[in-house]
Amino acid sequence: MKRLSNLFALLLLWTSGTFAGECSLRGTGDLGVVIERASGSVQIIETSGNTAIARVTGLGDLSHASVVYSRDERYAYVFGRDGGLSKIDLLCARLVKRIIQSGNSIGGAISQDGSLVAVSNYTPGGVKVFDADSLELVADIPATWGNGRRSKVIGLVDAPGERFVFSLWDAGEIWIADMKDPKAPKITRFRQIGRNPYDALITPDGRYYIAGLFGEDGMALLDLWHPERGVRRILDHYGRGEKKLPVYKMPHLEGWTVAGGRAFVPAVGLHAVLVIDLATWQEVGRIPVYGQPVFVEARPDGREVWVNFAFPNNEKVQVIDTESLKVVDTLEPGKGVLHMEFEPRGEEVWISVRDRDRVQVYDTASHRLVRELPAQKPSGIFMTWRAHETGL
Amino acid sequence: MKRLSNLFALLLLWTSGTFAGECSLRGTGDLGVVIERASGSVQIIETSGNTAIARVTGLGDLSHASVVYSRDERYAYVFGRDGGLSKIDLLCARLVKRIIQSGNSIGGAISQDGSLVAVSNYTPGGVKVFDADSLELVADIPATWGNGRRSKVIGLVDAPGERFVFSLWDAGEIWIADMKDPKAPKITRFRQIGRNPYDALITPDGRYYIAGLFGEDGMALLDLWHPERGVRRILDHYGRGEKKLPVYKMPHLEGWTVAGGRAFVPAVGLHAVLVIDLATWQEVGRIPVYGQPVFVEARPDGREVWVNFAFPNNEKVQVIDTESLKVVDTLEPGKGVLHMEFEPRGEEVWISVRDRDRVQVYDTASHRLVRELPAQKPSGIFMTWRAHETGL
Repeated sequence: MKRLSNLFALLLLWTSGTFAGECSLRGTGDLGVVIERASGSVQIIETSGNTAIARVTGLGDLSHASVVYSRDERYAYVFGRDGGLSKIDLLCARLVKRIIQSGNSIGGAISQDGSLVAVSNYTPGGVKVFDADSLELVADIPATWGNGRRSKVIGLVDAPGERFVFSLWDAGEIWIADMKDPKAPKITRFRQIGRNPYDALITPDGRYYIAGLFGEDGMALLDLWHPERGVRRILDHYGRGEKKLPVYKMPHLEGWTVAGGRAFVPAVGLHAVLVIDLATWQEVGRIPVYGQPVFVEARPDGREVWVNFAFPNNEKVQVIDTESLKVVDTLEPGKGVLHMEFEPRGEEVWISVRDRDRVQVYDTASHRLVRELPAQKPSGIFMTWRAHETGL
Repeated sequence: MKRLSNLFALLLLWTSGTFAGECSLRGTGDLGVVIERASGSVQIIETSGNTAIARVTGLGDLSHASVVYSRDERYAYVFGRDGGLSKIDLLCARLVKRIIQSGNSIGGAISQDGSLVAVSNYTPGGVKVFDADSLELVADIPATWGNGRRSKVIGLVDAPGERFVFSLWDAGEIWIADMKDPKAPKITRFRQIGRNPYDALITPDGRYYIAGLFGEDGMALLDLWHPERGVRRILDHYGRGEKKLPVYKMPHLEGWTVAGGRAFVPAVGLHAVLVIDLATWQEVGRIPVYGQPVFVEARPDGREVWVNFAFPNNEKVQVIDTESLKVVDTLEPGKGVLHMEFEPRGEEVWISVRDRDRVQVYDTASHRLVRELPAQKPSGIFMTWRAHETGL
């Protein structure tokens, strides 16, 4: 395996060289990027031959970075922690534009029609909306509440109907921004939804927006088909509980995964994956796993769910059978498994192994390692198929 | 509108000219093709600006043609009625290769990993499997049954696990072909599944394969998670019934659509869309509509279902609200509405209007016509997002 890795390192250098400053005539449906958090760079990868194509550098602080894609799957928008918003051309492997749009930001989203990119900011608290082509500012939505204070914004997602939805950490609110007239966002505000929403998700159909609450147990649910019904509380037991369990890393709620009418959800602070019935929003199962789950991701066919874990259990990945609700396999990629990304039709999954400076590719039928690529402290992996999905 | 159309015709000629023999450096996530059945051509379109890019000709008999895409979304494979299999390069707008692989064929599929393209044939009856790169024959699967006769093959789909599934019209059988070793397909055969399966579909997760039966009522269901349980009969009332209703066009079963745990299904011979509970496979609703439905397609967010109709009602499209189960809008694109294709995140839908030589684009929030493009007797519309889906 060591010799193989060296070979790939050479290959990588060669392809980087080949593509630097040039552009590649190719389809973009099988591309992706790997965040290299320590070096402020991304690698562009392709999943047909499982190779690295190029590296793009100069992207600033990429801790907790995330990525969305243009609707043509040519451009990646990278949201950095330092308020940086970078637009990368995957075909020409170059940074098209980079702006620092705030002091501190936490992710973003692209609108349904692909024309707008929104970023959620901590400092100053609010959402800024940019033209996806030019990165010119289109709208600034300050998250103001009581006495003109501004709240940190988290859990920003796109929703059908050219809307963005997000939560206000300090204010305990959920806002919908209707962007049909981009320069005049129409805001719908839901107050007192719970204390300190820390992250949120939207179901794959774009109907339900769900925010996790750091300040209390339970979650806040908004039915976007019926905003007039307001926000209601679900899963009252969901959270750290009365014992205030030690939580090594708050789970990513976008790690919620839906398969066969049920959601598979990381339990907060527990070594367990919760199974939630989406018709009743009740917990219907609890699957013991190896550590505190971070991402819980369904293979696209819904037959398996793959789970990674918080420190100190972050060297393993477990596979759950969604029918028997049992762990059927445990893999050990190595210390620092930070993210997993399935290819769109699910035949392979890419796993970033930070402490080994590797990205691994597994065959999902056999669970066997089929490829290993060098990467500098890799974290998130994001593939272009996300361009075609809501809320990703 | 007339002047607008002329303008687009000019634009089309101009772009065709520009792109002929050249290649375009661009993303491929927002591309698609429109089948022009009478002239044996396709138009390449893009959905970001809603324009036609180029026309590719020389594709033979395209009645009942369908399309699948390479996993990088660069190449379209067009299945013609005449046994022709054509590979088109969307970026260079040219025919890469065309083979006549049988005397008469009826659709095809691309394998999960994108390496194999399969075609289902009437004459001689069977499935042929080709290398997706070269279109070299990889495997020939004759559909032999009693006394060495060969059956027509229909309802061919891809399934997770590098499998193809298809039905035998004459034999009344369903076969699974496991292609993990492409040169030695492993066939699993289900006999006596019902008389004359005429079309089939697979649920979006790739789990359930369902064949419609022309020779009797009801449908044949195969759970691909549990092939050992065999094929069972569902929806015993589904079909033409005892009265043998006149059927102007057998509905396309790939027109089945799943939204919120329910399937919306064209009734055979009736002016109705059936609502099926996917947990019980029972009919739970019946929605009266304007004609015999052909395609019943869910907007990607599942909130609406759009329906077109068989002759003589093929000038209208109806929109059903999936919550109230009522028709909420009726559009009149014009005579010969043959197909509808949603953009992947659902903000717009493309509709082919054969007798008006037009393709129309509607905004799905307002249901308003936003663009009209000239096309020669357009039928199927297929966008590249299908590359990322199972069974399409």
